[in-house]
This record gives sequence, C-alpha cells and structure tokens, in this order.
Amino acid sequence: MNKIYKIGIIGLGQIGNYLYRELNLKKKYIETKTSKKIQIIGISAKNKNKRRKYKIDKNIFYSNPFDIIKKKPAVIFEMIGLSDGISKKIVEKALNNKINVITPNKALIAKHGNNLSKIAEKNNVNLEFEASVGGGIPVLRTIKESLSTNKINKVSGILNGTTNYILSEMENSNLDFKKVLSKAQKLGYAELTNPKLDLNGYDAFAKVRILSSLSFNSKISSDKCLMEGIENIDLKDIKIANQLGMRIKLLGLTEVISGKLFERVHPCLVDKKSYIGNVNGVMNAIIISGMPVGESILQGEGAGPGPTSSSLLSDLISILRGSTKKPFGIPSHEQKKLKAYNLDNYSNSLYLRFEVRDVPGVMSKITDKLAKFKISIKRLIQTPDHKSKKATIVMITHKTTEINIQKCLKIINKDKDTLKFPTLIRIFN
Amino acid sequence: MNKIYKIGIIGLGQIGNYLYRELNLKKKYIETKTSKKIQIIGISAKNKNKRRKYKIDKNIFYSNPFDIIKKKPAVIFEMIGLSDGISKKIVEKALNNKINVITPNKALIAKHGNNLSKIAEKNNVNLEFEASVGGGIPVLRTIKESLSTNKINKVSGILNGTTNYILSEMENSNLDFKKVLSKAQKLGYAELTNPKLDLNGYDAFAKVRILSSLSFNSKISSDKCLMEGIENIDLKDIKIANQLGMRIKLLGLTEVISGKLFERVHPCLVDKKSYIGNVNGVMNAIIISGMPVGESILQGEGAGPGPTSSSLLSDLISILRGSTKKPFGIPSHEQKKLKAYNLDNYSNSLYLRFEVRDVPGVMSKITDKLAKFKISIKRLIQTPDHKSKKATIVMITHKTTEINIQKCLKIINKDKDTLKFPTLIRIFN
Repeated sequence: MNKIYKIGIIGLGQIGNYLYRELNLKKKYIETKTSKKIQIIGISAKNKNKRRKYKIDKNIFYSNPFDIIKKKPAVIFEMIGLSDGISKKIVEKALNNKINVITPNKALIAKHGNNLSKIAEKNNVNLEFEASVGGGIPVLRTIKESLSTNKINKVSGILNGTTNYILSEMENSNLDFKKVLSKAQKLGYAELTNPKLDLNGYDAFAKVRILSSLSFNSKISSDKCLMEGIENIDLKDIKIANQLGMRIKLLGLTEVISGKLFERVHPCLVDKKSYIGNVNGVMNAIIISGMPVGESILQGEGAGPGPTSSSLLSDLISILRGSTKKPFGIPSHEQKKLKAYNLDNYSNSLYLRFEVRDVPGVMSKITDKLAKFKISIKRLIQTPDHKSKKATIVMITHKTTEINIQKCLKIINKDKDTLKFPTLIRIFN
Repeated sequence: MNKIYKIGIIGLGQIGNYLYRELNLKKKYIETKTSKKIQIIGISAKNKNKRRKYKIDKNIFYSNPFDIIKKKPAVIFEMIGLSDGISKKIVEKALNNKINVITPNKALIAKHGNNLSKIAEKNNVNLEFEASVGGGIPVLRTIKESLSTNKINKVSGILNGTTNYILSEMENSNLDFKKVLSKAQKLGYAELTNPKLDLNGYDAFAKVRILSSLSFNSKISSDKCLMEGIENIDLKDIKIANQLGMRIKLLGLTEVISGKLFERVHPCLVDKKSYIGNVNGVMNAIIISGMPVGESILQGEGAGPGPTSSSLLSDLISILRGSTKKPFGIPSHEQKKLKAYNLDNYSNSLYLRFEVRDVPGVMSKITDKLAKFKISIKRLIQTPDHKSKKATIVMITHKTTEINIQKCLKIINKDKDTLKFPTLIRIFN
C-alpha cells in the first residue's frame, strides 16, 4: 500500500486536460478500488500557458515530454494523437523503459500496433488502448477478456460519431451535407480545420483494423479492402432511402472469408426497423457475432472527453489491479497473418442512383448494360423532372459482384446521357 | 508454462455438460491465450450414468464432490445452482481451501455473496460469477473493470429471457399467457417443473441485487422493495398497450435515491419506438447510466449453454491471466450498507385497467375515488361490452405515489361494480 504509482500525461488537449482532472478527482476512489496510490508527477504539452478548462499544476509541467519518461513513472498516458512522429517516439521510449503506456490513439495503434505490442511484451509492460475504439464503449476489453474463448466470425458497427451525426441530421433537418457539416463543426462534433479523416472513413478504418486483430487473433493488416466515406451522400439518397424504409449509415465491418481478411468501411443502407438503423446521432454501436456466445451488442457514446476518460481510467485500473497483459490478448508470435480478401469477388445487393437526361431510350441503355454484366434488378424507381429534362433512376439490384458493377458503372458513366458518375450504396444484410 | 492448472466441475446438467465439452475442446486455445495449461481432474453429478449430450470421462467422476476439493484443484466450477445446501457448502469449502471458484449461480450469490466474498478475500482467491447475470453478456466485468471509475446512477434492463419471450410471443401470436407459457416450455425457454421463479420476478430480482452491489459499491441487500412478475399480465393489456404505442416488458431496475437503495422488478409499459421496446424474444439487454461515460447499452443472449459457457470461460481466463481480484471489485470492508428506499414514496405514471359492470355511475365512482387520492388522469379509454354488461376502463395517470394508488385500488376493489382487482402497470421513463 505504500508504493506510489507515478503517472505522466503527455498531451493536454481537450481530452488530456479532462483526464488530468479526473485523475486528480478520483485519486482516493482509485485507491479504494485497487489498493494502490497514484500521483501525477509530470504533464507536458506544446503550450504551458494556453487557457485550459481545468487548471493544471505548472510545477509538474515539462516542456520536453521525454523528461517525464526520465523520471520513470509507472504509467504514461500518450494523449497527442499522431500516427507517427512524437507520439510513436514517446510510446516506444516509454515501453523500452519498462513504463506502462495507455493511449486513445487509434491512428498509432492501427499503424504501428504490431511492432509496439512486441516491444511491450519484450519489456513485460502493458500497452492499453481501450479508448481507441468506441470511446466509452468497453469493446476491446470485452473481446480480449469477456469473449476471449469465442470464435468471432464478424464484427460490424457504427464506429464514427461525426458521420453518424451528419447522416442523422441530414434526415432530420432536410439540409444538405455541407450545411449539416458546418452545423456539426459548430457543435464540436466535427473537426474545424480538417474534418476529412472522419468523413472519408479513415478514422473508422483504423478502428476496424484494431477490432480485426483482437477478434481474429491476427496481425494488424496494412491492406485496404474497401474504404468509402460519406462525402458523396446526397440528401436525395437519404430521402429515397427513407421511402424504401431504410436509412444510410457509415458502417465498419470486418470478417474472415475463406481464410482471407475482409475489412471495410462504407455507407450502407440499413433497415429502418433494424437495431443498427436506430442508432442515431453521435452514438456508436458494435455488433459482435461469435460462437458460442451468439450476437453481442454494445452501444454507447463514441467520443467526447467523458466517455474517453472512462475508458482511459479503465486501462489504468486494469494495470494497477492486474498482472501484465498482452496488448492484443494473445502473444505477438501467436498472431496469424491474414491475407486480404479480393474485393472483386464481393457480392452484394446494391442501391444505384443514375442521374440522366430525360430522353427516350435512356432507361433501355442502362438496363441493357446491366444485363450484359449479369446484374439483375429487384426494384426500380424513376423520377423524371420534365422541367429540367433530367431524370433520377434508382435501382435496387440482386446480389452483384463488385468487379461487375464497377466495370458496368464506368461504361454507363461514359454514355452521353449520363450526367454524373452513378451513386452506389451497398445494402447491409 | 509447466505447471498444470487443475480444474473440477461439480454439476453436469445441460450447462455443466456443455462447459465440460468446451473446456476439453478449447484446452489448447486457452493455453495460447493465457500461457497456462489446464486439465479437468474431477467431475461430479448426482447420476454418473445419466444419458448426456456430450460424453464424460468416467475415470475422473466422483460421486462425492468434496473428494474433488480434496484433490486441491486450482479452480472449481460450481454448476449445481442451489441458493443454499450443497452449492453453498461446496463454494465455502473450496474458497477456504484456497481454491478459486467460478459459478453461474445467481441465487447463491444474491443470497450469500456478502459472506462468500469475505471468505474469498480472506483466502486470497477469486470468486467469479459473470454468468450469473445476463448469460453471455459481459455486464459484470464491464461494471467491475471497464466502468470502474464511473459514478453509476441507475441500471435497468431485461434480465430474464423466459418472461421476455412470453410477452413478445403473446403480442405476436395473440395467444394468452397460459398457452404461450406451455409453448415456451416445449421450446425449452421455460422450466417444465417449476417455471415460477422466472415468471414471478424472483430470478430477475437476484440479478438486480448483484448489479446493485457492483454498481453502487454496496453490500448485497436483503430487502425487497418491489417484485412483481408477469403472471397477471392479460392478453388484453398487451393489446391495449399496442394501441397506445407501447409494449409490456418485465424490467429489473436499480438506483440510489437520496442515499437509499431502490431495487425493483416489475412489468413496465415501454415506448414501442424506444431501444428497450425493441429487445424481443429471449434477448437480454442492460442499460447502465454513469458519469462521465453516459449511457452504455449491452445486449445479447441471456441464457442457454453457449452464452453461459462463454461467460464461465471468461472467468477462467481472468483467473489464469491475472492476479487475485476482489469478487465485487472493491474490498468487502469498503462496501457501503445502503438502506432500502421506501416504496410508498415512489411516484410514477401508471396504466390502470378496471373491469367493471357496465352500469350508470360506475365511471364517476372510480374517478371520484381517484380524485380523493389526488390521482389525476392523463388519458382514458373505455370499452363497453354491452352483451355481457361489462366494461373495461383503462387509464393512464399522471405521476402518482405508490401509497396513494395502492390505497385507492383497494377501495375501488371493494365496490360491488368492480369485477376483479384492478390491473396496475408502471410506465417506464
């Protein structure tokens, strides 16, 4: 009970600053729960004197974060968030100095997790990153510990709150993508300077990579099967989806098909009555299918200082309470290396929207091309706009392979009556 | 790596037998995940030669379960399931002999958890019971570990799959309680000989007690604030709920109100469009409200050998991987003792159904009584059945205290025109 566990926090942005306060507030409580005393012995950030929501103790501020590592704390929180550079250096240095590391940095783990976990294992320390996926949702610990002996087949879910908010809000407010994005930025749900990484699926893809590795006991892959964002989702698509009893959601999915890893992030049409169709706003949700447990669902707030801190502190509790754990729940050398699934073979029911000139024969040209690629139509909605002499044609297809539809759409796009590249949204099943 | 962790299984019913097979099947996998070798060294059940789905090794069968304890295994699975008697004796004996214990036995933990955790702590061994609540849903570990530093305000959910199946099926099939119960029994969703403990809320109440203790860091209470089952839910109520855009669910709820513990299990009217209103069939779901994490939802299969085994094995993995943990996540002596909330003060919006003689003045007699007890009506539906000269009157009230409504219903019940004791269902908010 006498030993004091020293803690360093590197990075004092919105979340690092909140974490700093939580650690100070809950010191006594953590002691009760773990029988271990903690003390923050060093904090570091770019700017010592920046205005922060929660006041920091400047006596323990270090301009150089490596000076904190030199003080040999028991735990370092890496809160900078870069996929490389200083973030990577700090984590490596800490682990090599037998310091436990906790980070919410999905970009870093998705890119360097294989190597970092090796370093952690070699030095017999913990590398914990619960907050990197799903914010406050304890999904990583659930997979690593609670579902540890299950054979997981598939993980899917809403992994990015920003895009889910935007899609929900487009439906609710009837405003287009750009207007809703700027509303999201005002509310703090989307980044001001560079919202791209949320919108284009990159953020969700990093989370998918981490989920795959934990679920399938495999190395983090560096292949990219399929990553599409929501930048091209039109209000029109949302309205038509609505008519069809569906909603558009940006989903992250990962599964192993015939021994190949199929990771993807893309907009999906989901049934309005389904569970996932009703997860709206900034909420995140993850569905894990495993044997023998069946389907497990976890839902919660996916971002923000509160939920993220909850996960960061759960990592700390785990370190204080327990013996050293493998970062990915299994020794590095036991992780399989899975090859990437060939997207061309992926077969799915699709939503297609064609914007065409409203002239005779245009429909038959499209259906003709589709037929040549063996793409059969389940449902068709044509909305002519006689004034502008344009028409919107929406089709729901039967199962169609990616290679066929991509080839076919390219050909249709070249037709003089096609006004823009057709929109393709995959239907979730 | 050389030490072999010896395991004993006591009780080989449907779940014990499945667990036995899983342990044998996943021996190698558990070794990979934990770097620990395991071996089942003893099994015990009432009947050695009973026909079982998965064949047992009779060479390690012991008629007397205490003979397994004498062999000093590292872990004992208590799979008998009694709240007292042999189950309690086995667990106590094992813990006192410094043997880790894993059990899905909610009745035992809800009744004797306070004392058993003390024994475990004294002997520095683990007592794990993840499978006792929510089957395959990792809710206990989530509260103990992932949400460990949150202040939990309230936990609510569908904690019993049998009753949820019956209520869902009554709505779907339009059949009455008795018919659906016998269907549930045929499908194995309800016990054949004594389904009472599921139906009357007892099973769910045991789970509520365990959830309270973990969520509020308190001793398991022995008070019973409010426990009602679904035996009196009529098909009529389900149909009327449907008209009102609601569904009836048996919920378990626990919260701390002004320092008092309010634990309850009773049917609730929930919004059809709400999350909880859409958890149907044998599914279980638990909503945890905490600060700063916000609302966390966990959903999954609440019973059956597969999901239960998943949780039992997660307990084993936790023991093999980690250091000794406190059974309730906090040392026994740190647990608070919470007094029970006085149900009389509980105030809620209510659904009331009166079956009355269809005679003049009957409505005014009821509304008159209600007014005397300051119960105000939000909505009223009267359905006379002129043929039988009976009428059904349904009311939704504004917030009303329990003491007032209970007194009032007793008085209305005494009226000669009241045909049966009025039905009361609380509305979930």
